Amino acid sequence: MEAILAYLARNESRFVDDLCTYARFPSVSAQPKHSADLQKCADWIADRCRSIGLETVVHPTASNPIVVARTPNYDRRKPTFLVYGHYDVQPPEPFELWTSPPFEPVIKGRNVFARGISDNKGQHLAHLNAVEAWLKSGRELPCNLTFLIEGEEEVGSTALYEFLPHNKALLACDAVVISDNGIPTLKHPALTYALRGITAMEVHIDGPSRDLHSGIYGGSLQNPAMALCQLLGKLRDARGRITIPGFYDDVVRLTAYERRQMSKVPYNATAYRRFLGVPQLFGEAGFTSDEQRTARPTLEINGLTSGYQGAGSKTIIPSWASAKLTLRLVPNQSPEKIRSIVTRHLRKLCPPTVKLTVTSGHGGAPYLVSPTSAIAKGALRALEAGFGHDAILTREGGSIPIVSAFKQHLKADTLLLGMALPDDNPHSPNEKFSLDAYAAGMRMSAQLWPELACAAAAS
Amino acid sequence: MEAILAYLARNESRFVDDLCTYARFPSVSAQPKHSADLQKCADWIADRCRSIGLETVVHPTASNPIVVARTPNYDRRKPTFLVYGHYDVQPPEPFELWTSPPFEPVIKGRNVFARGISDNKGQHLAHLNAVEAWLKSGRELPCNLTFLIEGEEEVGSTALYEFLPHNKALLACDAVVISDNGIPTLKHPALTYALRGITAMEVHIDGPSRDLHSGIYGGSLQNPAMALCQLLGKLRDARGRITIPGFYDDVVRLTAYERRQMSKVPYNATAYRRFLGVPQLFGEAGFTSDEQRTARPTLEINGLTSGYQGAGSKTIIPSWASAKLTLRLVPNQSPEKIRSIVTRHLRKLCPPTVKLTVTSGHGGAPYLVSPTSAIAKGALRALEAGFGHDAILTREGGSIPIVSAFKQHLKADTLLLGMALPDDNPHSPNEKFSLDAYAAGMRMSAQLWPELACAAAAS
Repeated sequence: MEAILAYLARNESRFVDDLCTYARFPSVSAQPKHSADLQKCADWIADRCRSIGLETVVHPTASNPIVVARTPNYDRRKPTFLVYGHYDVQPPEPFELWTSPPFEPVIKGRNVFARGISDNKGQHLAHLNAVEAWLKSGRELPCNLTFLIEGEEEVGSTALYEFLPHNKALLACDAVVISDNGIPTLKHPALTYALRGITAMEVHIDGPSRDLHSGIYGGSLQNPAMALCQLLGKLRDARGRITIPGFYDDVVRLTAYERRQMSKVPYNATAYRRFLGVPQLFGEAGFTSDEQRTARPTLEINGLTSGYQGAGSKTIIPSWASAKLTLRLVPNQSPEKIRSIVTRHLRKLCPPTVKLTVTSGHGGAPYLVSPTSAIAKGALRALEAGFGHDAILTREGGSIPIVSAFKQHLKADTLLLGMALPDDNPHSPNEKFSLDAYAAGMRMSAQLWPELACAAAAS
Repeated sequence: MEAILAYLARNESRFVDDLCTYARFPSVSAQPKHSADLQKCADWIADRCRSIGLETVVHPTASNPIVVARTPNYDRRKPTFLVYGHYDVQPPEPFELWTSPPFEPVIKGRNVFARGISDNKGQHLAHLNAVEAWLKSGRELPCNLTFLIEGEEEVGSTALYEFLPHNKALLACDAVVISDNGIPTLKHPALTYALRGITAMEVHIDGPSRDLHSGIYGGSLQNPAMALCQLLGKLRDARGRITIPGFYDDVVRLTAYERRQMSKVPYNATAYRRFLGVPQLFGEAGFTSDEQRTARPTLEINGLTSGYQGAGSKTIIPSWASAKLTLRLVPNQSPEKIRSIVTRHLRKLCPPTVKLTVTSGHGGAPYLVSPTSAIAKGALRALEAGFGHDAILTREGGSIPIVSAFKQHLKADTLLLGMALPDDNPHSPNEKFSLDAYAAGMRMSAQLWPELACAAAAS
């Protein structure tokens, strides 16, 4: 192991260069204009996999390609682990809030700034670097490894959901490893044992057949923007509780043990408030801030659009109004069931003076894994060795819908071993990745494979 | 009078050509990119005034010029009337809903389609054509006339409000005539005796200092878009009544006489609903549709903006959310007082978890004029003569804020003699103007001046 860790230390600056090169691709999956950039980005990461000796195939799909790269000399007596990552990134808008261009990585101190560098390019690249260290040091990996790197995570992984059931043999594994989440600090490496699910919806309200003069007609018809505000405003009460009947029915209550574990995550309300940049924190009454954002379901408005949005004023009753919503779900809420009860409630609340259309977006089930299994204990030891600090157990507020799909199709549990820090700004302007987390992540990954191989052998 | 009416009939097709030429200028005052177009449009209407013999000056202002054109040979023994109009137009967006380009007038049947053709280019051009008929027929006008044509009506007439108090002598008059409003049908020419006022506001809510990942942070802070929806949604109840304390305090109740007069306006609920294109009508309980839209105050949302508005979804808590509002006011509500009580109420409702900023836009007081004065009776006779039908008394839902300014600075009442029809689509895509209304408006205007001169002499 020392030779492998020495290799990682020796090549650190090249690994940073590779990370910057990777982050330069504007691989924005939500925006059709970037489809060629996504192809180029997939080709680059595939070449990177080949360069360290992995058997690599770029699988074309109906949209962005899926890269599958496997360690050479497959040995059926060894366990197999699958490392999942995604090369696509969130839209960078609004550009004007970035202090440096989103696709021109800039190093400041021990951070690199670029869109997608933390979510998720840096994190799966750390695993790839660790595997390079094993292979180039001439050491024999105690397991087979498969890298599965897709290009649609930020828009719902449609192609991968199509790919998975048709490639079960190719992707067969004893467990999945995903680093696409975060840890509280570099001193608190964490195994994440639960994730929130998600369901995305769009609420569209049609009023008059065209924008109307607010003086001539105003008062004699429903204003669609007002109808939308009244509809959405009724979905949450002043104590932060969702008011949709049945919304909490399937929520598994937090145990006292879980609440104790979660309380180990360092938290300072003033620092957190300042970090968010809000005048005062807000959340569902009766829960800590960490519980609110990781163990409780939410309904968030992601966007509102109606009428005139330019300079000055335009005295109209807008023809329509719409909102983008995402609901974060916790075990055992089902995306389909929640979508259906939300839609039913919206239809019940919507006045007959406007026309309501509810469109379903992507969804993903919440996830919970046992933190006392052999592979989980092995992962905790690798975390401690890589980061040099005791590992803790956490829940994560974000959604990694693919985790449920791996369970379904590959019958494999997933270990979530995040490297992102709370101030990495994923999905926000000025996204960054810590070079210390990158290095610790590589060391963790290098030591993970013997631990997992040993755990798999024992089970 | 017959010679004058014959002149109008003889020149009708040229007047239509002039109208189309005038409508070709994209004189959109809300959009800075059109400032040169506004200057060209002002020059064109000034040249038109000069060509019929008016003494015309294009007054430069801090923004768009003001055109003042006076009949020659000023006679201090005759009364003077002022005709007001505006050459600026509303923004044409959204372009895709126009069936022909907004600044390329197209004649279909007895209508001409173009942005600004009804509001207001066609209406003041009708008056100008009538004056041409008087002057070119060699008949002596029984009054002095001043045309005042500005270029900022759609954005609050800032330059004109500055110009008025400094040009009281230039603009001195016995009464003002404005045709910038509508009549129910060509068979119901109308004198409008009341107008709603307006106050525009923008409500901006700031949440976190940047867009945040809705999974990682969602649940632990207020969503600004939700806060905005809840704030705005509380401003009106299910019966269409504004819930802001004190909002109705200064509203003058409709008398039984007024309600009888208003009931003469033809109305068919099904036809009106279909015309608006809504599934069901809606308005303040206890009032007819016509009363709701002309004699009752309103609060309308003109636009909503927050977060991600592009294709697909973006899983964020938006950093901010904002709404454009206009409130329509009725006698004796004051724009300043209403703005202040709305702002106070918004501040009271806004939770401490976000930051609220309320910005004031333009405002104009509501207006009420006695329909039994000598000049009003004269105007009714001119309407009947021009349109060939009994004239009725109506209220108007729109705002013509300048009417109050004329009262204040020139001590002159305003006669509102609209030529627009209910399906003219002002402020909407596919704005049009009726050529029959244009012709009737010219005949009405030609016959108005002897009536008004006679009324002024009698008073």
